[in-house]
Amino acid sequence: MSTPEDTPPRFSGIRTFARRPHTDELDGVDVAVVGVPYDGGTSFRPGARFGPEAIRSVSVLLRDYDQAIDVDVLGSLEIVDRGDVWAPPGDSEGAVAALADGLKPVPEAGAVPLVLGGDHLIALAELRALAAAHGPPALVLLDSHADTWDSYGGQRYFHGTPFRRAVEEGVVDPSRSVMAGMKGPIYSKQDLEDARELGFELIPWKELRELSPEQYADRVRSRVGDGPAFLSFDVDFVDPAFAPATGTPEAGGPSSAEALDLVRSLTGIDFRGFDVVELSPPYDPPGQPTAILASNVAYAMLGLVARART
Amino acid sequence: MSTPEDTPPRFSGIRTFARRPHTDELDGVDVAVVGVPYDGGTSFRPGARFGPEAIRSVSVLLRDYDQAIDVDVLGSLEIVDRGDVWAPPGDSEGAVAALADGLKPVPEAGAVPLVLGGDHLIALAELRALAAAHGPPALVLLDSHADTWDSYGGQRYFHGTPFRRAVEEGVVDPSRSVMAGMKGPIYSKQDLEDARELGFELIPWKELRELSPEQYADRVRSRVGDGPAFLSFDVDFVDPAFAPATGTPEAGGPSSAEALDLVRSLTGIDFRGFDVVELSPPYDPPGQPTAILASNVAYAMLGLVARART
Amino acid sequence: MSTPEDTPPRFSGIRTFARRPHTDELDGVDVAVVGVPYDGGTSFRPGARFGPEAIRSVSVLLRDYDQAIDVDVLGSLEIVDRGDVWAPPGDSEGAVAALADGLKPVPEAGAVPLVLGGDHLIALAELRALAAAHGPPALVLLDSHADTWDSYGGQRYFHGTPFRRAVEEGVVDPSRSVMAGMKGPIYSKQDLEDARELGFELIPWKELRELSPEQYADRVRSRVGDGPAFLSFDVDFVDPAFAPATGTPEAGGPSSAEALDLVRSLTGIDFRGFDVVELSPPYDPPGQPTAILASNVAYAMLGLVARART
Amino acid sequence: MSTPEDTPPRFSGIRTFARRPHTDELDGVDVAVVGVPYDGGTSFRPGARFGPEAIRSVSVLLRDYDQAIDVDVLGSLEIVDRGDVWAPPGDSEGAVAALADGLKPVPEAGAVPLVLGGDHLIALAELRALAAAHGPPALVLLDSHADTWDSYGGQRYFHGTPFRRAVEEGVVDPSRSVMAGMKGPIYSKQDLEDARELGFELIPWKELRELSPEQYADRVRSRVGDGPAFLSFDVDFVDPAFAPATGTPEAGGPSSAEALDLVRSLTGIDFRGFDVVELSPPYDPPGQPTAILASNVAYAMLGLVARART
Amino acid sequence: MSTPEDTPPRFSGIRTFARRPHTDELDGVDVAVVGVPYDGGTSFRPGARFGPEAIRSVSVLLRDYDQAIDVDVLGSLEIVDRGDVWAPPGDSEGAVAALADGLKPVPEAGAVPLVLGGDHLIALAELRALAAAHGPPALVLLDSHADTWDSYGGQRYFHGTPFRRAVEEGVVDPSRSVMAGMKGPIYSKQDLEDARELGFELIPWKELRELSPEQYADRVRSRVGDGPAFLSFDVDFVDPAFAPATGTPEAGGPSSAEALDLVRSLTGIDFRGFDVVELSPPYDPPGQPTAILASNVAYAMLGLVARART
Amino acid sequence: MSTPEDTPPRFSGIRTFARRPHTDELDGVDVAVVGVPYDGGTSFRPGARFGPEAIRSVSVLLRDYDQAIDVDVLGSLEIVDRGDVWAPPGDSEGAVAALADGLKPVPEAGAVPLVLGGDHLIALAELRALAAAHGPPALVLLDSHADTWDSYGGQRYFHGTPFRRAVEEGVVDPSRSVMAGMKGPIYSKQDLEDARELGFELIPWKELRELSPEQYADRVRSRVGDGPAFLSFDVDFVDPAFAPATGTPEAGGPSSAEALDLVRSLTGIDFRGFDVVELSPPYDPPGQPTAILASNVAYAMLGLVARART
Repeated sequence: MSTPEDTPPRFSGIRTFARRPHTDELDGVDVAVVGVPYDGGTSFRPGARFGPEAIRSVSVLLRDYDQAIDVDVLGSLEIVDRGDVWAPPGDSEGAVAALADGLKPVPEAGAVPLVLGGDHLIALAELRALAAAHGPPALVLLDSHADTWDSYGGQRYFHGTPFRRAVEEGVVDPSRSVMAGMKGPIYSKQDLEDARELGFELIPWKELRELSPEQYADRVRSRVGDGPAFLSFDVDFVDPAFAPATGTPEAGGPSSAEALDLVRSLTGIDFRGFDVVELSPPYDPPGQPTAILASNVAYAMLGLVARART
Repeated sequence: MSTPEDTPPRFSGIRTFARRPHTDELDGVDVAVVGVPYDGGTSFRPGARFGPEAIRSVSVLLRDYDQAIDVDVLGSLEIVDRGDVWAPPGDSEGAVAALADGLKPVPEAGAVPLVLGGDHLIALAELRALAAAHGPPALVLLDSHADTWDSYGGQRYFHGTPFRRAVEEGVVDPSRSVMAGMKGPIYSKQDLEDARELGFELIPWKELRELSPEQYADRVRSRVGDGPAFLSFDVDFVDPAFAPATGTPEAGGPSSAEALDLVRSLTGIDFRGFDVVELSPPYDPPGQPTAILASNVAYAMLGLVARART
Repeated sequence: MSTPEDTPPRFSGIRTFARRPHTDELDGVDVAVVGVPYDGGTSFRPGARFGPEAIRSVSVLLRDYDQAIDVDVLGSLEIVDRGDVWAPPGDSEGAVAALADGLKPVPEAGAVPLVLGGDHLIALAELRALAAAHGPPALVLLDSHADTWDSYGGQRYFHGTPFRRAVEEGVVDPSRSVMAGMKGPIYSKQDLEDARELGFELIPWKELRELSPEQYADRVRSRVGDGPAFLSFDVDFVDPAFAPATGTPEAGGPSSAEALDLVRSLTGIDFRGFDVVELSPPYDPPGQPTAILASNVAYAMLGLVARART
Repeated sequence: MSTPEDTPPRFSGIRTFARRPHTDELDGVDVAVVGVPYDGGTSFRPGARFGPEAIRSVSVLLRDYDQAIDVDVLGSLEIVDRGDVWAPPGDSEGAVAALADGLKPVPEAGAVPLVLGGDHLIALAELRALAAAHGPPALVLLDSHADTWDSYGGQRYFHGTPFRRAVEEGVVDPSRSVMAGMKGPIYSKQDLEDARELGFELIPWKELRELSPEQYADRVRSRVGDGPAFLSFDVDFVDPAFAPATGTPEAGGPSSAEALDLVRSLTGIDFRGFDVVELSPPYDPPGQPTAILASNVAYAMLGLVARART
Repeated sequence: MSTPEDTPPRFSGIRTFARRPHTDELDGVDVAVVGVPYDGGTSFRPGARFGPEAIRSVSVLLRDYDQAIDVDVLGSLEIVDRGDVWAPPGDSEGAVAALADGLKPVPEAGAVPLVLGGDHLIALAELRALAAAHGPPALVLLDSHADTWDSYGGQRYFHGTPFRRAVEEGVVDPSRSVMAGMKGPIYSKQDLEDARELGFELIPWKELRELSPEQYADRVRSRVGDGPAFLSFDVDFVDPAFAPATGTPEAGGPSSAEALDLVRSLTGIDFRGFDVVELSPPYDPPGQPTAILASNVAYAMLGLVARART
Repeated sequence: MSTPEDTPPRFSGIRTFARRPHTDELDGVDVAVVGVPYDGGTSFRPGARFGPEAIRSVSVLLRDYDQAIDVDVLGSLEIVDRGDVWAPPGDSEGAVAALADGLKPVPEAGAVPLVLGGDHLIALAELRALAAAHGPPALVLLDSHADTWDSYGGQRYFHGTPFRRAVEEGVVDPSRSVMAGMKGPIYSKQDLEDARELGFELIPWKELRELSPEQYADRVRSRVGDGPAFLSFDVDFVDPAFAPATGTPEAGGPSSAEALDLVRSLTGIDFRGFDVVELSPPYDPPGQPTAILASNVAYAMLGLVARART
């Protein structure tokens, strides 16, 4: 049990996620936090390459016990900060391959990767790594966008395309997957239809906002079933007032409180991986509310693991 | 139908509203977007002169299809960006006259002006232009303030006075008008009484927040009737967390999602003009949430036209 | 009754709270606003020493009449801005003593102190000053944190410890006190238990959010009873989207509108003192939403006094 | 003699200029600091209405003794902060008249006004006030612009026109005046010629930068002679790296150190008034370098008075 | 000759470079301004994709006549804003090819391209376009870096490699080229040696700062000779105080004034193309000093053309 | 020899100073970088507690070879990042003791501490640690302030008092020390006299600016002699345009280039310790120019060690 007395002040120390040890060691590790500072697939505002640094910076505020779920989250799990897996920008197809290789050791060792993005293209690398270890997982997505375009100005590896690529590659199981939160202007009605035709279930924001967290979670659980799953949280899921620092914000979404409730509701699912993506720190105001939200979403994900393990 | 493949990247190109053509042509035009970069009537924080530029800058994120209302908004309307109608600061009375003259060609040609402000004084110029073409319209106002003062430190043409001037000039029909959203400290109880004595119906925020969007829209429709109407949205209508970049913010208001719902609810009204005003870009944080909200409010207004035309 | 015509523009003049006179005079004064620019007890982000300046700066927007409660707040009370009571940083124990001495003349003269913080440690000084004049008051706290740690890295006078010190010193009556709003990661389950063991009643945020303002107020009233009370508002009570400028933000909280409703609900209590604390202006975005909220919370507190006096 | 021991901390207290008393009293006053928060004459970025507040805010850093000139500046002069003289925006011609009236009592009482702007149009009001008391003064201007246009989009009272108006009105003596620092793109060669044709002497920046402060001062002294003079400092005189927070910045100018040297060099001139104008605080970065420079320029002006009086 | 009277206010209008017409027309055009919003080759801070928008935004301050060189720059040249040539990020090698194709029509038509970047990789595309029309030009580079690495983490098309690629491709003539301004920590002494071995002449900052602009220009002229040349200005050439908004800033460099002098000194060279690159607007403070400097550098380049043509 | 090819991208990885290993190991270490995130002694703007994090964040840009001095700085020294030595705020006297204890192991092991502050009070802790290992060192100070006050509002341990305390404690040798750079308004002439009376030699900025770096270095060397020395760099030494992010900025100082030249000039002195202090990151604009300067000053200090060791 940690206390304010025996803990160095929050403003001190080399920044690792939630002050967990920085190590490559995976033995006995429950969750390995990995930064993936890649933003080469961004269609509007870049900067997500600094997402891992920003989340680590404010994650010093994360203490052991989550009163929202009454669980000693940090105390009940072995968590390490594995540092970053990286690829230079300039070749997104190559980058996805390199990032997947960099991520694979984590699920192979039986640890759960909690990835700090980076733009959403990195989810393709994550899915490759998870599928290699566990078979294609269900995708549970909270996002303003379905990210199932085929290409963007000729680019097939882009932050709007990872889940189409993942279906094509067989590294995700769309028949067990639920995408929720789609909002904002889209190219055409076909955008969302395309996602459905790929096999995904969609709960757009105008439908999701009518559900309680429990109703949402029931719907997800019934679709995902007992197989392995992957939870991906794009910070543009929430309203820009709560997450201004993101690449493609869409006005009129949920609050941080609503978003955290949705994440926390997802108990009883066999999550083998998580990510929080699309935080672009140069667009955060000085109080860094987006980074703080992102760190709390990651913490809520840890809470899901802690509840599953206890 | 537009697609991500055949569209230049969102970060490229000369900025016009929603990437519509920049032209003075009005033939066959449904909606003409016009910037009015005037902030000479501002009582606290200036800067709204840069509102049109900021809205155009982020409006590149507006795509054709609005999934919130299931309408191909940009695809079903002829929309142009007419550039700016301007007047130098320093003589607000003269400026209103010049701006009204600059705006008149749009309603005269049968196009609907969608004005990007500028401070709220410009609404007087808009009402003059609309009244000249269509007779005095009903005003549908979403705003923290009724803007019906008589003068401010001796100034009769000010962003707190346009709707009193409009009544005096006979360019608005208060008997068919609804002002909603008033909140925040006021000079005295008389402030709101004055607006009512001029003939306006008021739904202050503490009353509005108890209404569903449908209830609000019913009330507006029953008051406005079949005649021409004008919808004016002051970004200070929402809470400062959602619209920090405005001249006279008032704490404790609605969210962006609530505001967009209210705008979208106003179907079945014969709107001949729209504006989004009081965005002051120097006060937006780096992610520009206020500008993004303003661009989406303008887009929701386009949606009202699209639904009326189809 | 003030009007926009007879009032200097909001952007002019030396900044005092709500443009009240700057004086040490206490005769006939209902409420004395006092800045306490102390942030020597801050565990994460400092800067609250500039809180009083920032609140005064934006408080020019506060006009006389509060339409939310239909009361002429500024017109019905004698309010002065007493300037700042200060202590240099570097010796928090000594500072609390000095601040308490500086604050005592206000309650002694029968005026209600409305303190602009400063970090939350200053509440200990306020409680000492109030208790000296009126006996130990009940504490009504709206805060993400209970601030009842024993020490922090060896420091017993810290912004996380004032209410434990106050109990030890007998300057607060925990048996009549209600702390509400606790949220976010804590060191251990014991953090909140400790507060309860000291005698405080706690309504954590996950419980509070299920209550209406009236239910909350009833619960507070029944606990506080008729004795003197003190209302303390830590701006980190609200979500970081609404109050990004604070020392230890916690994601996922109430909105400004919800917070103001809770403050306004607390009628019928004999408040002898108020504070708004933990505003750290360097972390406010350019539109200063946190300072604006803080000034409106202070104004809502004035409203409570006005309603009690009329 | 003040000391760090007997002075309240710099972060405390109601903000007045350099912590001088806020009073309307002029008896025995050497210098009266007056804010003129007017920015209704601004051609590009507004915001100078918040200039007086910002300068006062950081002027707490100004201590008594100026080591640059070895003079106890604050200790040797009676200085008061007279608060603000204001006019609402919206009628610049009327505003100049109102501001001149508001300023006149200062020179009439024999005190030297040190005006904190506001945009440069206010200089016309200052010159009227000075000329009424002392006859038309010489203008000593440090500015990127000569501000002698005839009109701007039809506006004759604008921040680019005050010195032409002043010549027309006979409230400045161009034959004894020196404008220095002109740089940046201009409309045509005629811009500067116009200023010369009005009778002003010009030292554009490309010529000024070749002069030592002493050479510059000699040139000014020989032109100004023994008559009354007015020193006006537009913060856009320096490079935007040193003064980013201004309405019409021009790249490639002097540093703060160079600018302060020039101001300090102007000994031996009978200055009857001073101003520092065109600080637009919304455009200052968080450390407020422009406001800090402006406050130090004002302090250097006080130093000129102190040296003249001792 | 333009005047302040017949020109719309600087804050109005759709933003094109220096308010030049937006057109694809090249007949009779002297200079075609082209934005290249590509930042897919950035090694540290991205964001240069918004460089063209930011430069256009503040370029409204550029007026016709440059008093620094006594030339009517805008009045003596036919200048158009051709909009942007773009490529999606994610494939830098492909992007360079696409950008080169997009740029080629300008030199082919005999117009001089003035490119607004974008990161420095785009210089390779520019050199290809220029070489195709005119043969390999001399490179005149003002930059903190030589940008002649071979690869970066495996990427051969990167903002640190364009000039090596250009030599390999034969689209630059290093024997007539001068790189100046190199400063800051480098990987090894070999970094600069590599550039020299490729055939470039280098004038590192510690050498350049000892030269007058005339001495620098003489050295450049004697090396470049009469053949075609290309002038590339990376904003990181100046000190971060003057250009904080750039991808890889290096402390301790020249001022804006010094940089502009150097650019202006380069008369008598047959420049067939120009660029200003590496402005990353998300890192500019609110007054946008870097964008303002970049727009003035571009204006100084236009001045070189104007002087050559007159 | 490092290369861009074999180095992870600058935006990746857990942030340690210049990417040196994070370890407590001191065997064979030449320089141990230590963060001291203490700002409890700050008289105006706090925030220096985040100085170490900010310097580490941007220090990823520091590469091995310093072309300014032609030395492979990182390649020729064993440098470690020892993390932070901390004390909670609230008891500055106790904090200095704790910090001194935390720092002592470095000089005891024969390594040179390079401390990243923190406010300037921490220099007292550093001097205690150095004196314990090596005897009282000479102080070489570059700072706008002499920091030799006796107390501030009763506080004897403050960022304006460390060097008086150090003299009293005998942990500095004033007779071999040189303080340079004093500028800005001071309390009285006595401020600087006090420093001289304590035995320090002072070179105020108005004198220093007339010296070449070599002349300055000669003067320092002749005073310091062969004994151990300590070099302390307060970022407020430079002009606020170059270092806006500091607690007590003073307008009108040197540039970054001038400051780096001065640091680099100090060869031939037996420095046993270094610090860079008073960086307050909340006041840095988004491009973080102050942090970048601070990291380069630290790098220049490493260069002094490298030159001494080779």
